[in-house]
Amino acid sequence: MTTYTANPALDLVLERTVDVAPEQVWRAWTTPELLMQWFAPKPWSTTACEIDLQPGGRFDTTMRSPEGEEYPSSGCILVAEEGRTLVFTSGLGPGFRPQVSEDGFPFTAVIKIEPHGDGTKYTAIAIHADASAKKSHEEMGFHEGWGAALDQLVEVMKAG
Amino acid sequence: MTTYTANPALDLVLERTVDVAPEQVWRAWTTPELLMQWFAPKPWSTTACEIDLQPGGRFDTTMRSPEGEEYPSSGCILVAEEGRTLVFTSGLGPGFRPQVSEDGFPFTAVIKIEPHGDGTKYTAIAIHADASAKKSHEEMGFHEGWGAALDQLVEVMKAG
Repeated sequence: MTTYTANPALDLVLERTVDVAPEQVWRAWTTPELLMQWFAPKPWSTTACEIDLQPGGRFDTTMRSPEGEEYPSSGCILVAEEGRTLVFTSGLGPGFRPQVSEDGFPFTAVIKIEPHGDGTKYTAIAIHADASAKKSHEEMGFHEGWGAALDQLVEVMKAG
Repeated sequence: MTTYTANPALDLVLERTVDVAPEQVWRAWTTPELLMQWFAPKPWSTTACEIDLQPGGRFDTTMRSPEGEEYPSSGCILVAEEGRTLVFTSGLGPGFRPQVSEDGFPFTAVIKIEPHGDGTKYTAIAIHADASAKKSHEEMGFHEGWGAALDQLVEVMKAG
């Protein structure tokens, strides 16, 4: 199948091993009630989530800031290989409809889930159109944010 | 699987029945040497084509105007269901990388190929972000252009 190789000039990568099983990581990413518990790094929260788990299906989330402001975003699932690979993009909306972001930049997220002992090798790649989008995403705190969210994912799945 | 329903406010549809078999229409769309013979309505021509027929794969074409000016465009395949459905978009490039069109508008094309007697029911849907993109595409001559290209496809496949 398709392999996803990050371009260091354009993309951001978070790679970690975690001690929850691949199928748990997959469930956490694809089950709205679970995703809402970990997706936004605290003190942010996720107040809505809708996922139609197939290519062309919607991947919608709403994040709420500590001040109570809500930020809905709508994306499109591109790949859903159960237990292994989830790819979604904000460059398209549900039904593969192109969407132009009024502010910010579109990106595609590749979540690779691989068995690693009893745990998981977890790779998140954020794919951008150009170096300036990569830079903005990095300065918004990509590594800290996605890292903190992953810690929350692990905590939620261990508690469940 | 996913069904593709056009939104009349945003999308353009060309629906025709043609007397070449579904597998011939599929070959014409997915084989670069064939596609280059019909894709651009004459007197335009297609001077280059590269297709990596899988989700995330490239769908690149170069059209040449009667004056000899070349217009390369790079897109991304989203769905490749052999003999039935081809979906690609200019909103993403190869590897699902978001791309921002400097000029023009992004669109997603759905090509549905269904058996119809000995021939094919052919449906092409152009999916746009908003009504103004639809209008631009229509004014560029979507129906005439895609219709003439389909006539050429039929002619090429009958000759082959």
